[in-house]
Formats: sequence, structure tokens, C-alpha cells
Amino acid sequence: MRISCNELEDTFLRIISGHGFTEEDARDLARVFAGSTIDGVYSHGINRFPRFIREVRNGTVLPEAEPEIIRSQTAFEQWDGKQGAGILNALQCADRSVQLAGQSGIGCVGLANTNHWMRGGTYGWRVAERGLLFIGWTNTMPNMPPWGGDRNTIGNNPFVMAIPRSEGHVVLDMAMSQYSYGKLEWHAKKGGMMPEFAGYDTRGEITRDPAEVLATERILPAGLWKGSAMAMVMDLAAAVLSGGLTTCGIGDLPAETKLSQVFISVNIRQFMPQREIDSITREALDFIRQQNDRILYPGQRALEHRQKCLLEGLEIPDELWKEICSL
Amino acid sequence: MRISCNELEDTFLRIISGHGFTEEDARDLARVFAGSTIDGVYSHGINRFPRFIREVRNGTVLPEAEPEIIRSQTAFEQWDGKQGAGILNALQCADRSVQLAGQSGIGCVGLANTNHWMRGGTYGWRVAERGLLFIGWTNTMPNMPPWGGDRNTIGNNPFVMAIPRSEGHVVLDMAMSQYSYGKLEWHAKKGGMMPEFAGYDTRGEITRDPAEVLATERILPAGLWKGSAMAMVMDLAAAVLSGGLTTCGIGDLPAETKLSQVFISVNIRQFMPQREIDSITREALDFIRQQNDRILYPGQRALEHRQKCLLEGLEIPDELWKEICSL
Repeated sequence: MRISCNELEDTFLRIISGHGFTEEDARDLARVFAGSTIDGVYSHGINRFPRFIREVRNGTVLPEAEPEIIRSQTAFEQWDGKQGAGILNALQCADRSVQLAGQSGIGCVGLANTNHWMRGGTYGWRVAERGLLFIGWTNTMPNMPPWGGDRNTIGNNPFVMAIPRSEGHVVLDMAMSQYSYGKLEWHAKKGGMMPEFAGYDTRGEITRDPAEVLATERILPAGLWKGSAMAMVMDLAAAVLSGGLTTCGIGDLPAETKLSQVFISVNIRQFMPQREIDSITREALDFIRQQNDRILYPGQRALEHRQKCLLEGLEIPDELWKEICSL
Repeated sequence: MRISCNELEDTFLRIISGHGFTEEDARDLARVFAGSTIDGVYSHGINRFPRFIREVRNGTVLPEAEPEIIRSQTAFEQWDGKQGAGILNALQCADRSVQLAGQSGIGCVGLANTNHWMRGGTYGWRVAERGLLFIGWTNTMPNMPPWGGDRNTIGNNPFVMAIPRSEGHVVLDMAMSQYSYGKLEWHAKKGGMMPEFAGYDTRGEITRDPAEVLATERILPAGLWKGSAMAMVMDLAAAVLSGGLTTCGIGDLPAETKLSQVFISVNIRQFMPQREIDSITREALDFIRQQNDRILYPGQRALEHRQKCLLEGLEIPDELWKEICSL
């Protein structure tokens, strides 16, 4: 069925309210879940919303948690997320890194003991909207085998980088696996192969068959040894910067929680007016994309999806909407 | 032929001296070129040394340049590399980011107008050796097609991340192409295919044949659209953070020069003693690598190569050594 963006957000808000969040927190959560959906990232928007509500109800996510600053040295801080909602903790720490960057040119917040931040891009868009450059990442539960290994001992640890632009922010939001589990499920439902190698089949061979990869739960690192190595380093760095758990420690828990995340903002507009940032990035992207329209810049698809949905509303599968409304 | 590590460094120093560098700068250059070779990265060590000397002689690299600070806001600075030697500029800016991090917890230096920094890992090892966490990257000339494109309009923009450890620093040093041109040349000489897809052949198909890829000069982004997207964002970010050129602007120059680079250090030991960093990272790496010895952590191969070479010396092809000695 087709619903408007406002109806989507209002529905999320109505369901979240009454789960112990403050009114402001509930509003932020509804806005972010709706925003990710409107940007086309259903997997971490509406598709994930029922699971988020279940996690609030079963105590994985603590609605009354208040993140707390633990240690601070001028522009670098460590925060304890107290197992609160990942979105709320991440918004607060992203905003805090912006504040620190305002004071010192650059700011870094390491966040321990938090929950899934849903779409990583949310925090890139957020910081870019304020005119700063953003770098951030999270670790996850063990969900990917390292290159050369059979068992899932590393996370696919999404990495985010954003640059503010008047014509549409550049926002990279990239997990270290070639495909997300959400995308594999979508293709498996449709039937047919993935366009590129996606993971391992039951015989241990690399395959494009999404059903096989979903059966083995062994996704392929993007760039093979490269995504595998970058995932390892980001995991260690997130734990060390936040004082929190690594993917190894998260794997010992009964559910995916107590994640470690990093939020770095840089106050570029202090040195360079936005119109100069715009002109540098426009020239570079025009040069890259002159060849054909298939070449997208990171963030372009989200912006186009958003503009379309704000005008036309969203198409939501009937089954899913029924599930949402019955929460 | 086999030579000792000391002989390698002394030979480099003898050749560099008399090219207009200060004695200290010449010593740093020789040490870094030797160090990369000893760590097994011949492509950006001894193999690249003759080209570096040529670039000094033809004026691409200016030996007397003194990098200069242009703008500063507390922990974020922009420097102009004045087209000096890339290694010297990068060492100075990496060290400066360490200083800033000592004062403010985190420090960021954007460096414009510099030359090739040779092995990116050099600066990761350098900062980790001082006990800080490092994130850095560089742009390059256009040397890779974006995913979906035919012509080389993006750089393979190496990304570096390092974490200090008593048992061997973790150092990720990763270009955004699946393979480096150096590795393709090495395999092409031996004959035979690359183990994985490497780039495009003359018919525009993806191939594992290194000779074909060297002919088209169209290498494959690591992770396909992922490495392509990350390369784009890092290029824009390097230009915006440093006030320097993007890959697009570098492509307009007669030679690869005036690169933009970023150096970020974080003062993690302020919050966490090294023995705790060691124990967190040891537990995580043991968990990842329990499966088999083929799984390396980033930086492991360099350390093992270094330990072996310091004992046994290095094997250098006769032809190459003759070329070096005749410079």
C-alpha cells in the first residue's frame, strides 16, 4: 500500500510512545526510522522497526538509559551508552563530536555499550547538515568470516564518511561485506543469482546464490582480504577508542548489544566557505561522472529516493504494514 | 644479491646526499626507503627509489621546500607541502598530528601540495610507535575507473589505520584497488593469472590476466562499487581538509604531484594503559585467527619480514642493485 512520509513517521511515533522513552527521544526515534525508509534504506528503517520494538520489550534496549561521559581530554571523549537505544546514543555522540569540533577544529567521541545504530548514514547526513565533515564506524556481532577463514569471527562493521554540499551531501555508508544480509534476502525471495560473488555455499565454494549464502551465513568481505582487514582494524579501533567491547566480546553475549562506535567531526567550514567546498566537490564529481549516468556519487541514490518519496509517498508491502500497525 | 639492512640504508643515503636535502632530511629519506624495503614493500621502497631520484632531478620534488602551516584551529591544521619530498612532508605532518593529539586528545593535519608519500604504512607505524592511534589517507592521480565507468577518473587512494601494540602494531595500509600495479607487474613477469579478478581486458571484460590489465591500465576497485565509492569520498575529503587538489586537478598536471593528504592521531593512552590495549587486541585477534595460520592481522607480514631481514639481510635482484648503485 502507499502511505505518506508523515503517516509513516506518525505511526512509528505512536508505537514507540508508551515504551518508556521521553517524548523527545520517541520523536527522534520515529524521525530516524522514517528517514532511513524514505531514503530507501528499508533494511535499517521500516524492515527493522518490529525487531527494535521487540528489543525494547525484551530488555536488550533500555529506553530510560542516559548516556554518560566517562573520560575526556579536550576534543576526545569516551561515553558509556548504558545499553540505551542505538539511534539515540549515536545522535547524541555525533552531535557531541560536532560541538567538540566547534571548539577545537576536530572532535572525537568513542561510545561503548550501545545498541545497533540502524543506518550508519544517518549520522553522516546529520553532521554534514551542520556543515562539518564526518568519519564514523561501528563494530557488530561476529557475522562474517575473515578472508582465509571458515567461521564468522569478524563483523561487517559499517564505515561512514560524509562531506557537506549545498547540492546534496556526499555520504558513504558502507559495510565491509560485499552485500548485506538484507539484500541477500531480497534477492533470494525474488529468486536468481546476485550480480557478483556474495559468499560461500554449503561446499565452501564462493557463490552468487543468495539462498546458499543465507544457509551458510558466510558472507564475502568486500574486496576479499581488503574488507576483511579493514573490518578487523575498525573493530579493534572502536573498542580501544571507546573502552568498550570488540566483536569477540559481543559474540559472547546472548544478543547483539554493547557495541562500540566512533564519531569524528571536523570543522572544515572554519577554513573553507561552503561555496568553495561546493565548487571543489562539483568539479571532481563532474569529472568522475562524465562517462555515464550509472556512476553515482555516495549519497546520491538516498537523496533521489527521498525527493521522490516526499512528493509521492512510499510503497510499503501490505504484510509489513499490517505487522507494523499490530505492534 | 644479498645485502644487509645497514648497507641498503647507507647506499640510499649516499645517493640522496648531494641532491640539495639537509643532512637530517637525507637521513630520514634513506631510513624510510630502506624501512619499506625491509618490511617487504619493495614497490614503495627500493623499486621506487630510482624514480624518486629522477623526480628530484627533474624538479617534480623540490628538496629545499619547507612545509608551512597555513591555517589552524586548535587541533586541526592545514599545511602547504610546497611540493617537497612526500616522505618528509608526511613525516612532519604525522608528527604534528601526534603533537596536537597530545594537547587536545585528537589532532588532524590536512596537507596540500605534497608529493607521493611512498608507503602509507610508514606513517601508521610511526604514530603507533609513539603509542597513538592513527587514521590517514592520500589521493593520487587518476589511475582507476570508477565502478560502472570505462576511463580512469578516480585514484586508488590508499587508506591507513594503525593501533599500537606491544606485540606488534596493527597497521592497515590499503589502496582502493584490488591489486597494486606493482603486484600486477610482478605476476606478469612470472607469467600466469592473478588469484582473483584484477581489472579489465582489452575487450572490456573483467579478467585475472595481469598482462591484459597492464595493457588497459584499468584496475578493479576492491569490493567493486565499494572501493570505488570510498576512493571518491576520500579524494574529496583530502582536498577539503587540506585545501588542496582533488584527483581531478592532479590529473591536469604533467606529472603526479600536488597531492592532498590527511593525518589524524588520537591519544588513546591518555585513557587506556598500553597493557590494556594489548590485552583487548590480543583477545580479539586470537579469536579471529584461531581458525588457521593463513589469517594474518594487518601489519603482521611486514613485522615478520622485517625481523627476518634484520637477521639475514635482503635478497635484491642484481639488475636492480646495479641500477641503484649507478644513480
